[in-house]
Amino acid sequence: MNILVTLDSNYIKPLRIMLKSLFLNNPGEKFNIYLLHTSLKKKELEDLTFFVESHGSKLNVIDVDENCFSGAPVLLHYTKEMYFRLLSYQLLPNDIDKILYLDPDILVLNAISELYETDIKEYLYAAAYHDKLSIKEINKIRLYPYEINAYYNSGVLLMNLEQLRREADEKEIYRFVDENRAKLIMPDQDILNALYAKRIKSLNELYYNYDARYYTYYKMASNGSFDMDQIINNTVILHFCGKKKPWNKKYTGTFHSLYKQYEKQSNYLL
Amino acid sequence: MNILVTLDSNYIKPLRIMLKSLFLNNPGEKFNIYLLHTSLKKKELEDLTFFVESHGSKLNVIDVDENCFSGAPVLLHYTKEMYFRLLSYQLLPNDIDKILYLDPDILVLNAISELYETDIKEYLYAAAYHDKLSIKEINKIRLYPYEINAYYNSGVLLMNLEQLRREADEKEIYRFVDENRAKLIMPDQDILNALYAKRIKSLNELYYNYDARYYTYYKMASNGSFDMDQIINNTVILHFCGKKKPWNKKYTGTFHSLYKQYEKQSNYLL
Repeated sequence: MNILVTLDSNYIKPLRIMLKSLFLNNPGEKFNIYLLHTSLKKKELEDLTFFVESHGSKLNVIDVDENCFSGAPVLLHYTKEMYFRLLSYQLLPNDIDKILYLDPDILVLNAISELYETDIKEYLYAAAYHDKLSIKEINKIRLYPYEINAYYNSGVLLMNLEQLRREADEKEIYRFVDENRAKLIMPDQDILNALYAKRIKSLNELYYNYDARYYTYYKMASNGSFDMDQIINNTVILHFCGKKKPWNKKYTGTFHSLYKQYEKQSNYLL
Repeated sequence: MNILVTLDSNYIKPLRIMLKSLFLNNPGEKFNIYLLHTSLKKKELEDLTFFVESHGSKLNVIDVDENCFSGAPVLLHYTKEMYFRLLSYQLLPNDIDKILYLDPDILVLNAISELYETDIKEYLYAAAYHDKLSIKEINKIRLYPYEINAYYNSGVLLMNLEQLRREADEKEIYRFVDENRAKLIMPDQDILNALYAKRIKSLNELYYNYDARYYTYYKMASNGSFDMDQIINNTVILHFCGKKKPWNKKYTGTFHSLYKQYEKQSNYLL
């Protein structure tokens, strides 16, 4: 399975924890992990490579030239790295047809093969949206006149690279950013939704992009059936969305103890 | 290391989870586990034995005759099993000098060797008390005129069996129960405190009997230093005290997700 990650130095620790959870809960699976970056140090890359190889998988580092995406508009507070995810089809080797992008603020709690095998032949992406009314409505209004029925979260993104190479157009992306500078909040997620919403296969968020902030909400909305038991045994991707991150000192949240347990395990190679 | 557990059928599942956490966090350690019981079924014992042996340890089952402790008073709502813990020195093989009793509503988060090696040559037991004012005061008043400065929790109990065989007196225990029938709430714990408080070596509850209900309290009382990080990396015994248990459907609590993770792992032999 091909896994895509993109990050800077600040996210190395969470990345290790995410990968550790991926390895632990997918024993015997050999992953081909592609890392897109501009600024990681040699030592950081060596450590990561050792970590990944110690778990029987492979790390493919792709150094992205800072001059890449030369036609891309740059937004205040955002670097060109915001384009990595959506333009990765240009940066990855041509012989890869499919890849699963994962944010580093994630825990993989169960086997991801079913997610990876999702049929997206007719789509560009598979992703989940967080079905809380507030989120949907705010983003619908914000991104008007672009028609969006759902606001997909770009933290877990299964990519049909073959189709993207045929269909996606970087100039369209640049144009969108240029024309909507003022209203973009999460640029890559906004682009994904405004330009590709109809080309995204919808995934069930409870399994493939469970927002760790909404435990009580999900449980209530499912009449109690989606409880802690369900999550631990069936949710594949637990996503620590939002500004408060579980590796930070002041974090409190339903999955804090679980996260810290994986963090501890990420310090061991077995 | 010798580990003592005593239970009925209702606690088999939590026991497996407790043992799984013990095995996972003490790799390479071979435990001699003694199980005192009256009512477990043959199949249940076989399954437990297989589980323990699969993890490289040994289960020693001790069937306790129902007619045992014939002179013991029986309290309403309590069976004679309440005496197992404190009279185990009579039931265990004579060549064992030391044993660590563990409740099944526990997770062992780290290596227990240091706890086990606590020097109790001059004591009968080592245990921790929960240093919340309310708990101490209520029990002090309740067990008056027995002098207790602390109310030790009997869920984690390191036993000096050699000394107990010399010093402990079952008749004294029976007499105490008989004379205090009306005020006993947690009989074995009450006995331990009323009769042996001065013969108990005090353990630090934060490491050896962390009450899972008091996360916020402990954190505050330690000026923030005893946070989730500390617990996951340094607390040895996490104890789910009280009526609400993490294996029950309606449980909510700080360590719910962590508990469920161990519960899941207890279903695997590796």
